[in-house]
Amino acid sequence: MSELKVKSFTISLDGFGAGMHQSLENPMGERTQALHQWFRGTHTFQRMMGDESKGVDGPDEDFAARGFENIGAWILGRNMFGPIRGPWPDDAWKGWWGEEPPYRVPVFVLTHHPRAPLEMKGGTTFYFVTDGIASAYAQARRAANGKDVRLGGGVATIRAYLRAGLVDEMHLAISPVLLGAGESLFAGLDLPALGFRCTGHVPTQSATHIVLRKD
Amino acid sequence: MSELKVKSFTISLDGFGAGMHQSLENPMGERTQALHQWFRGTHTFQRMMGDESKGVDGPDEDFAARGFENIGAWILGRNMFGPIRGPWPDDAWKGWWGEEPPYRVPVFVLTHHPRAPLEMKGGTTFYFVTDGIASAYAQARRAANGKDVRLGGGVATIRAYLRAGLVDEMHLAISPVLLGAGESLFAGLDLPALGFRCTGHVPTQSATHIVLRKD
Repeated sequence: MSELKVKSFTISLDGFGAGMHQSLENPMGERTQALHQWFRGTHTFQRMMGDESKGVDGPDEDFAARGFENIGAWILGRNMFGPIRGPWPDDAWKGWWGEEPPYRVPVFVLTHHPRAPLEMKGGTTFYFVTDGIASAYAQARRAANGKDVRLGGGVATIRAYLRAGLVDEMHLAISPVLLGAGESLFAGLDLPALGFRCTGHVPTQSATHIVLRKD
Repeated sequence: MSELKVKSFTISLDGFGAGMHQSLENPMGERTQALHQWFRGTHTFQRMMGDESKGVDGPDEDFAARGFENIGAWILGRNMFGPIRGPWPDDAWKGWWGEEPPYRVPVFVLTHHPRAPLEMKGGTTFYFVTDGIASAYAQARRAANGKDVRLGGGVATIRAYLRAGLVDEMHLAISPVLLGAGESLFAGLDLPALGFRCTGHVPTQSATHIVLRKD
Protein backbone atom coordinates (compact mmCIF):
# COMPACT_ATOMS: atom_id res chain seq x y z
CA MET A 1 0.00 0.00 0.00
CA SER A 2 1.11 3.52 -0.68
CA GLU A 3 2.74 5.15 2.37
CA LEU A 4 4.15 8.55 3.25
CA LYS A 5 7.82 8.14 4.08
CA VAL A 6 10.65 10.34 5.21
CA LYS A 7 13.91 8.89 3.92
CA SER A 8 17.57 9.76 4.40
CA PHE A 9 16.67 12.79 6.48
CA THR A 10 19.77 13.77 8.41
CA ILE A 11 19.88 15.33 11.85
CA SER A 12 22.69 16.33 14.18
CA LEU A 13 23.48 14.66 17.52
CA ASP A 14 21.49 17.42 19.20
CA GLY A 15 18.50 16.85 16.95
CA PHE A 16 18.70 19.67 14.41
CA GLY A 17 17.80 19.11 10.75
CA ALA A 18 19.06 22.51 9.66
CA GLY A 19 21.30 25.15 11.18
CA MET A 20 20.93 28.85 11.78
CA HIS A 21 21.09 31.55 9.10
CA GLN A 22 20.04 29.62 6.01
CA SER A 23 20.92 31.50 2.84
CA LEU A 24 21.39 31.08 -0.90
CA GLU A 25 25.10 30.43 -0.34
CA ASN A 26 24.49 28.17 2.63
CA PRO A 27 21.02 26.68 2.12
CA MET A 28 21.22 24.28 5.08
CA GLY A 29 22.44 26.96 7.48
CA GLU A 30 25.60 27.32 9.49
CA ARG A 31 27.73 24.39 10.65
CA THR A 32 25.96 21.91 8.35
CA GLN A 33 28.88 21.13 6.03
CA ALA A 34 29.57 17.87 7.85
CA LEU A 35 25.93 16.93 8.40
CA HIS A 36 25.48 15.09 5.09
CA GLN A 37 28.93 13.54 4.87
CA TRP A 38 27.49 10.01 5.09
CA PHE A 39 25.35 10.71 2.01
CA ARG A 40 28.06 12.39 -0.06
CA GLY A 41 30.14 9.21 0.16
CA THR A 42 27.51 7.01 -1.46
CA HIS A 43 27.14 5.79 -5.07
CA THR A 44 23.63 7.17 -5.04
CA PHE A 45 24.82 10.71 -4.37
CA GLN A 46 27.72 10.45 -6.80
CA ARG A 47 25.34 9.17 -9.49
CA MET A 48 23.13 12.20 -8.82
CA MET A 49 26.25 14.31 -9.33
CA GLY A 50 26.99 12.53 -12.60
CA ASP A 51 29.84 10.19 -11.63
CA GLU A 52 28.67 6.71 -10.77
CA SER A 53 32.26 5.44 -10.59
CA LYS A 54 32.68 7.21 -7.25
CA GLY A 55 31.14 6.31 -3.90
CA VAL A 56 31.34 3.23 -1.72
CA ASP A 57 29.05 0.31 -0.96
CA GLY A 58 27.75 -0.60 2.46
CA PRO A 59 24.87 0.29 4.73
CA ASP A 60 25.11 4.03 4.00
CA GLU A 61 24.69 3.29 0.29
CA ASP A 62 21.87 0.83 0.99
CA PHE A 63 19.89 3.47 2.84
CA ALA A 64 20.64 6.14 0.23
CA ALA A 65 19.53 3.85 -2.61
CA ARG A 66 16.39 2.73 -0.77
CA GLY A 67 15.46 6.40 -0.53
CA PHE A 68 14.63 6.34 -4.25
CA GLU A 69 13.02 2.88 -4.46
CA ASN A 70 9.29 2.58 -5.05
CA ILE A 71 8.82 6.37 -4.83
CA GLY A 72 5.99 7.62 -7.06
CA ALA A 73 5.95 11.27 -5.94
CA TRP A 74 7.67 13.70 -3.58
CA ILE A 75 6.46 16.46 -1.29
CA LEU A 76 8.82 19.36 -0.54
CA GLY A 77 8.47 22.36 1.72
CA ARG A 78 8.98 25.72 0.10
CA ASN A 79 12.54 26.14 1.33
CA MET A 80 13.58 22.78 -0.07
CA PHE A 81 12.61 24.02 -3.54
CA GLY A 82 14.36 27.31 -3.28
CA PRO A 83 15.11 30.53 -1.44
CA ILE A 84 12.50 32.50 -3.42
CA ARG A 85 9.19 32.87 -1.63
CA GLY A 86 7.13 34.14 -4.54
CA PRO A 87 4.95 35.55 -5.97
CA TRP A 88 6.64 33.85 -8.92
CA PRO A 89 7.68 35.77 -12.05
CA ASP A 90 7.35 33.82 -15.32
CA ASP A 91 11.05 33.11 -15.54
CA ALA A 92 11.26 32.23 -11.87
CA TRP A 93 13.58 30.02 -9.94
CA LYS A 94 13.43 26.40 -11.11
CA GLY A 95 14.83 24.73 -7.99
CA TRP A 96 18.35 23.97 -6.80
CA TRP A 97 18.99 21.16 -9.27
CA GLY A 98 19.40 22.61 -12.77
CA GLU A 99 17.43 21.48 -15.84
CA GLU A 100 17.29 17.77 -14.95
CA PRO A 101 16.44 17.33 -11.25
CA PRO A 102 17.09 13.91 -9.65
CA TYR A 103 13.45 13.25 -8.69
CA ARG A 104 12.15 11.92 -12.08
CA VAL A 105 8.59 11.81 -10.72
CA PRO A 106 5.98 14.47 -9.82
CA VAL A 107 7.11 16.74 -6.98
CA PHE A 108 4.55 18.71 -4.96
CA VAL A 109 5.94 21.94 -3.51
CA LEU A 110 4.09 23.59 -0.61
CA THR A 111 3.81 27.34 -1.11
CA HIS A 112 1.45 30.26 -0.52
CA HIS A 113 1.89 31.51 -4.09
CA PRO A 114 0.14 29.87 -7.06
CA ARG A 115 2.31 28.97 -10.02
CA ALA A 116 1.77 26.85 -13.14
CA PRO A 117 3.34 23.36 -13.10
CA LEU A 118 6.98 23.34 -14.14
CA GLU A 119 7.99 20.41 -16.33
CA MET A 120 11.69 19.66 -16.21
CA LYS A 121 13.91 17.20 -18.10
CA GLY A 122 14.09 13.58 -17.02
CA GLY A 123 10.56 13.11 -15.70
CA THR A 124 10.40 15.65 -12.88
CA THR A 125 7.42 18.02 -12.85
CA PHE A 126 7.05 20.52 -10.01
CA TYR A 127 3.47 21.21 -8.91
CA PHE A 128 2.87 24.16 -6.59
CA VAL A 129 0.27 23.45 -3.92
CA THR A 130 -1.33 26.39 -2.11
CA ASP A 131 -4.11 24.68 -0.16
CA GLY A 132 -2.17 22.93 2.58
CA ILE A 133 -0.41 19.73 3.54
CA ALA A 134 -3.41 17.39 3.39
CA SER A 135 -4.18 18.50 -0.15
CA ALA A 136 -0.54 18.09 -1.17
CA TYR A 137 -0.56 14.57 0.21
CA ALA A 138 -3.82 13.70 -1.56
CA GLN A 139 -2.44 14.99 -4.87
CA ALA A 140 0.93 13.28 -4.40
CA ARG A 141 -0.69 9.99 -3.48
CA ARG A 142 -2.87 10.09 -6.57
CA ALA A 143 0.17 10.88 -8.72
CA ALA A 144 2.19 8.10 -7.07
CA ASN A 145 -0.35 5.59 -8.34
CA GLY A 146 0.21 2.92 -5.69
CA LYS A 147 3.87 3.67 -5.00
CA ASP A 148 5.07 5.51 -1.88
CA VAL A 149 5.25 9.27 -1.46
CA ARG A 150 8.56 10.59 -0.13
CA LEU A 151 8.45 13.60 2.16
CA GLY A 152 11.69 15.44 1.46
CA GLY A 153 11.56 18.06 4.20
CA GLY A 154 12.52 20.50 5.57
CA VAL A 155 12.09 20.20 9.29
CA ALA A 156 8.97 22.39 9.55
CA THR A 157 7.24 20.43 6.81
CA ILE A 158 8.05 17.05 8.37
CA ARG A 159 6.84 18.28 11.77
CA ALA A 160 3.57 19.50 10.23
CA TYR A 161 2.95 16.09 8.62
CA LEU A 162 3.88 14.27 11.84
CA ARG A 163 1.48 16.39 13.88
CA ALA A 164 -1.25 15.71 11.33
CA GLY A 165 -0.66 11.97 11.79
CA LEU A 166 0.09 11.43 8.09
CA VAL A 167 3.65 10.02 8.21
CA ASP A 168 3.96 6.20 8.16
CA GLU A 169 7.74 5.75 8.38
CA MET A 170 10.89 7.79 8.85
CA HIS A 171 14.47 6.82 8.08
CA LEU A 172 16.70 9.29 9.90
CA ALA A 173 20.48 9.45 9.80
CA ILE A 174 22.08 10.90 12.93
CA SER A 175 25.44 12.44 12.03
CA PRO A 176 28.26 12.82 14.57
CA VAL A 177 27.99 16.59 14.46
CA LEU A 178 26.72 19.21 16.91
CA LEU A 179 24.69 22.09 15.49
CA GLY A 180 23.70 23.77 18.74
CA ALA A 181 20.86 25.77 17.23
CA GLY A 182 18.56 25.72 14.24
CA GLU A 183 15.45 23.70 13.46
CA SER A 184 14.90 20.84 15.89
CA LEU A 185 13.09 17.83 14.47
CA PHE A 186 11.90 16.42 17.80
CA ALA A 187 11.33 19.43 20.10
CA GLY A 188 7.87 19.29 21.61
CA LEU A 189 6.86 16.24 19.54
CA ASP A 190 6.06 13.04 21.43
CA LEU A 191 6.76 10.44 18.75
CA PRO A 192 5.71 7.41 20.83
CA ALA A 193 2.43 9.18 21.59
CA LEU A 194 2.07 9.69 17.83
CA GLY A 195 2.44 5.91 17.44
CA PHE A 196 6.09 5.64 16.43
CA ARG A 197 8.68 3.22 17.69
CA CYS A 198 12.22 2.45 16.59
CA THR A 199 12.11 -0.61 14.32
CA GLY A 200 15.56 -0.33 12.75
CA HIS A 201 19.02 0.68 14.00
CA VAL A 202 22.04 0.43 11.71
CA PRO A 203 25.13 2.22 12.98
CA THR A 204 27.96 3.02 10.58
CA GLN A 205 31.18 4.97 10.93
CA SER A 206 29.48 7.97 9.30
CA ALA A 207 26.01 7.99 10.85
CA THR A 208 23.50 6.10 12.94
CA HIS A 209 20.60 5.10 10.74
CA ILE A 210 17.29 4.64 12.50
CA VAL A 211 13.92 3.62 11.18
CA LEU A 212 10.85 4.85 13.06
CA ARG A 213 7.54 3.25 12.10
CA LYS A 214 4.00 3.70 13.19
CA ASP A 215 2.56 0.71 14.98
CA MET B 1 44.98 17.69 34.95
CA SER B 2 41.79 17.04 36.84
CA GLU B 3 38.70 17.48 34.66
CA LEU B 4 34.95 17.35 35.14
CA LYS B 5 33.56 14.56 32.97
CA VAL B 6 30.19 13.12 32.14
CA LYS B 7 30.60 9.43 31.31
CA SER B 8 28.26 6.73 30.06
CA PHE B 9 25.31 9.07 30.23
CA THR B 10 22.57 7.58 28.08
CA ILE B 11 19.99 9.48 26.07
CA SER B 12 17.23 8.42 23.71
CA LEU B 13 17.15 9.10 19.97
CA ASP B 14 14.99 12.12 20.69
CA GLY B 15 17.43 13.46 23.27
CA PHE B 16 15.86 12.55 26.60
CA GLY B 17 17.98 11.42 29.54
CA ALA B 18 14.99 10.44 31.64
CA GLY B 19 11.34 9.77 30.94
CA MET B 20 8.12 11.07 32.42
CA HIS B 21 6.70 10.10 35.82
CA GLN B 22 9.83 9.10 37.69
CA SER B 23 9.02 7.12 40.82
CA LEU B 24 10.51 4.80 43.40
CA GLU B 25 9.42 1.80 41.33
CA ASN B 26 10.55 3.37 38.07
CA PRO B 27 13.34 5.79 38.99
CA MET B 28 14.26 6.66 35.39
CA GLY B 29 10.66 7.30 34.37
CA GLU B 30 8.41 5.68 31.83
CA ARG B 31 9.65 3.90 28.71
CA THR B 32 13.26 3.80 29.95
CA GLN B 33 13.60 0.05 30.38
CA ALA B 34 15.46 -0.27 27.08
CA LEU B 35 17.48 2.94 27.47
CA HIS B 36 20.40 1.35 29.34
CA GLN B 37 20.46 -1.98 27.54
CA TRP B 38 23.93 -1.29 26.11
CA PHE B 39 25.25 -0.89 29.67
CA ARG B 40 23.51 -3.90 31.18
CA GLY B 41 25.33 -6.14 28.70
CA THR B 42 28.80 -5.11 29.84
CA HIS B 43 31.27 -6.82 32.22
CA THR B 44 31.44 -3.56 34.12
CA PHE B 45 27.73 -3.59 34.92
CA GLN B 46 27.68 -7.30 35.68
CA ARG B 47 30.65 -6.85 38.03
CA MET B 48 28.70 -4.08 39.80
CA MET B 49 25.87 -6.59 40.14
CA GLY B 50 28.26 -9.16 41.58
CA ASP B 51 28.78 -11.54 38.64
CA GLU B 52 31.90 -10.77 36.66
CA SER B 53 31.50 -13.96 34.61
CA LYS B 54 28.65 -12.33 32.69
CA GLY B 55 28.82 -9.54 30.15
CA VAL B 56 30.60 -9.19 26.82
CA ASP B 57 33.72 -7.42 25.59
CA GLY B 58 33.80 -4.79 22.88
CA PRO B 59 33.37 -1.05 22.54
CA ASP B 60 30.35 -0.92 24.88
CA GLU B 61 32.44 -2.54 27.63
CA ASP B 62 35.39 -0.25 26.83
CA PHE B 63 33.25 2.82 27.38
CA ALA B 64 31.61 1.39 30.49
CA ALA B 65 35.02 0.51 32.03
CA ARG B 66 36.53 3.88 31.12
CA GLY B 67 33.68 5.47 33.06
CA PHE B 68 35.37 4.32 36.28
CA GLU B 69 39.01 4.95 35.32
CA ASN B 70 40.94 7.78 36.97
CA ILE B 71 37.84 9.00 38.82
CA GLY B 72 38.65 10.53 42.20
CA ALA B 73 35.18 11.77 43.13
CA TRP B 74 31.60 11.93 41.84
CA ILE B 75 28.92 14.60 41.81
CA LEU B 76 25.26 13.51 41.81
CA GLY B 77 22.04 15.46 41.61
CA ARG B 78 19.56 14.84 44.37
CA ASN B 79 17.37 12.50 42.32
CA MET B 80 20.33 10.31 41.41
CA PHE B 81 20.88 9.66 45.12
CA GLY B 82 17.29 8.90 45.89
CA PRO B 83 13.62 9.76 45.75
CA ILE B 84 13.64 11.39 49.21
CA ARG B 85 13.99 15.16 49.13
CA GLY B 86 14.74 15.70 52.83
CA PRO B 87 14.91 17.09 55.39
CA TRP B 88 16.71 13.88 56.31
CA PRO B 89 15.73 11.82 59.34
CA ASP B 90 18.63 10.15 61.16
CA ASP B 91 17.92 6.75 59.66
CA ALA B 92 17.32 8.21 56.24
CA TRP B 93 17.63 6.77 52.80
CA LYS B 94 21.20 5.67 52.01
CA GLY B 95 20.97 5.72 48.23
CA TRP B 96 19.84 3.16 45.65
CA TRP B 97 22.86 0.88 46.01
CA GLY B 98 22.70 -0.91 49.35
CA GLU B 99 25.49 -0.97 51.95
CA GLU B 100 28.39 -1.09 49.47
CA PRO B 101 27.80 1.37 46.61
CA PRO B 102 29.89 0.97 43.42
CA TYR B 103 31.53 4.41 43.63
CA ARG B 104 34.34 3.60 46.13
CA VAL B 105 35.36 7.29 46.26
CA PRO B 106 33.81 10.43 47.78
CA VAL B 107 30.42 11.29 46.24
CA PHE B 108 29.03 14.82 46.50
CA VAL B 109 25.23 14.96 46.44
CA LEU B 110 23.53 18.26 45.60
CA THR B 111 20.63 18.95 47.96
CA HIS B 112 18.86 21.78 49.76
CA HIS B 113 18.87 19.86 53.03
CA PRO B 114 22.00 19.59 55.22
CA ARG B 115 22.96 16.11 56.37
CA ALA B 116 26.06 14.65 57.99
CA PRO B 117 28.40 12.69 55.69
CA LEU B 118 27.37 9.08 55.22
CA GLU B 119 30.24 6.61 55.18
CA MET B 120 29.41 3.39 53.38
CA LYS B 121 31.31 0.12 52.91
CA GLY B 122 33.94 -0.15 50.18
CA GLY B 123 35.26 3.40 50.15
CA THR B 124 32.15 5.40 49.22
CA THR B 125 31.29 8.37 51.42
CA PHE B 126 28.29 10.54 50.51
CA TYR B 127 28.72 14.25 51.26
CA PHE B 128 25.62 16.45 51.08
CA VAL B 129 26.31 19.86 49.53
CA THR B 130 23.79 22.64 50.11
CA ASP B 131 25.63 25.66 48.70
CA GLY B 132 25.42 25.03 44.97
CA ILE B 133 27.11 23.42 42.02
CA ALA B 134 30.32 25.46 42.05
CA SER B 135 30.92 24.58 45.69
CA ALA B 136 30.21 20.90 45.01
CA TYR B 137 32.73 20.95 42.18
CA ALA B 138 35.36 22.69 44.31
CA GLN B 139 34.90 20.11 47.08
CA ALA B 140 34.87 17.17 44.66
CA ARG B 141 37.96 18.40 42.89
CA ARG B 142 39.81 18.74 46.17
CA ALA B 143 38.73 15.24 47.19
CA ALA B 144 39.72 13.82 43.78
CA ASN B 145 43.29 14.88 44.48
CA GLY B 146 44.41 15.24 40.86
CA LYS B 147 42.11 12.63 39.38
CA ASP B 148 38.97 13.48 37.38
CA VAL B 149 35.55 14.23 38.83
CA ARG B 150 32.67 12.31 37.25
CA LEU B 151 29.36 14.09 36.96
CA GLY B 152 26.77 11.34 37.25
CA GLY B 153 23.64 13.28 36.42
CA GLY B 154 20.71 13.59 36.20
CA VAL B 155 19.82 15.75 33.25
CA ALA B 156 19.06 18.93 35.23
CA THR B 157 22.38 18.68 37.06
CA ILE B 158 24.38 18.13 33.87
CA ARG B 159 22.61 21.07 32.21
CA ALA B 160 23.39 23.32 35.17
CA TYR B 161 27.10 22.42 35.01
CA LEU B 162 27.14 22.87 31.21
CA ARG B 163 25.56 26.32 31.50
CA ALA B 164 28.10 27.25 34.15
CA GLY B 165 30.88 26.28 31.73
CA LEU B 166 32.35 23.73 34.14
CA VAL B 167 32.13 20.50 32.09
CA ASP B 168 35.26 19.50 30.15
CA GLU B 169 34.10 16.32 28.42
CA MET B 170 30.97 14.23 27.91
CA HIS B 171 30.68 10.64 26.79
CA LEU B 172 27.07 10.11 25.78
CA ALA B 173 25.48 6.87 24.59
CA ILE B 174 22.52 7.34 22.25
CA SER B 175 20.22 4.33 22.54
CA PRO B 176 17.92 3.23 19.72
CA VAL B 177 14.84 4.10 21.75
CA LEU B 178 12.24 6.88 21.55
CA LEU B 179 11.08 8.43 24.82
CA GLY B 180 8.90 11.19 23.41
CA ALA B 181 8.82 13.24 26.60
CA GLY B 182 10.84 13.70 29.76
CA GLU B 183 14.03 15.59 30.49
CA SER B 184 15.83 16.74 27.34
CA LEU B 185 19.60 17.00 27.63
CA PHE B 186 20.08 19.41 24.72
CA ALA B 187 16.93 21.58 24.56
CA GLY B 188 17.88 25.24 24.52
CA LEU B 189 21.59 24.52 25.03
CA ASP B 190 23.95 25.54 22.24
CA LEU B 191 26.83 23.13 22.83
CA PRO B 192 29.07 24.50 20.04
CA ALA B 193 28.58 27.99 21.48
CA LEU B 194 29.63 26.53 24.85
CA GLY B 195 32.84 25.33 23.17
CA PHE B 196 31.98 21.67 22.53
CA ARG B 197 32.58 19.65 19.44
CA CYS B 198 32.26 15.96 18.67
CA THR B 199 35.70 14.36 19.01
CA GLY B 200 34.68 10.70 19.16
CA HIS B 201 32.02 8.56 17.46
CA VAL B 202 31.88 4.82 18.08
CA PRO B 203 28.70 3.15 16.85
CA THR B 204 27.76 -0.29 18.15
CA GLN B 205 24.72 -2.49 17.69
CA SER B 206 23.42 -1.31 21.07
CA ALA B 207 24.20 2.41 21.07
CA THR B 208 26.04 5.24 19.37
CA HIS B 209 28.81 6.43 21.65
CA ILE B 210 29.87 10.02 21.21
CA VAL B 211 32.52 12.06 22.95
CA LEU B 212 32.01 15.81 23.14
CA ARG B 213 34.98 17.86 24.29
CA LYS B 214 35.61 21.49 24.91
CA ASP B 215 38.10 23.03 22.54
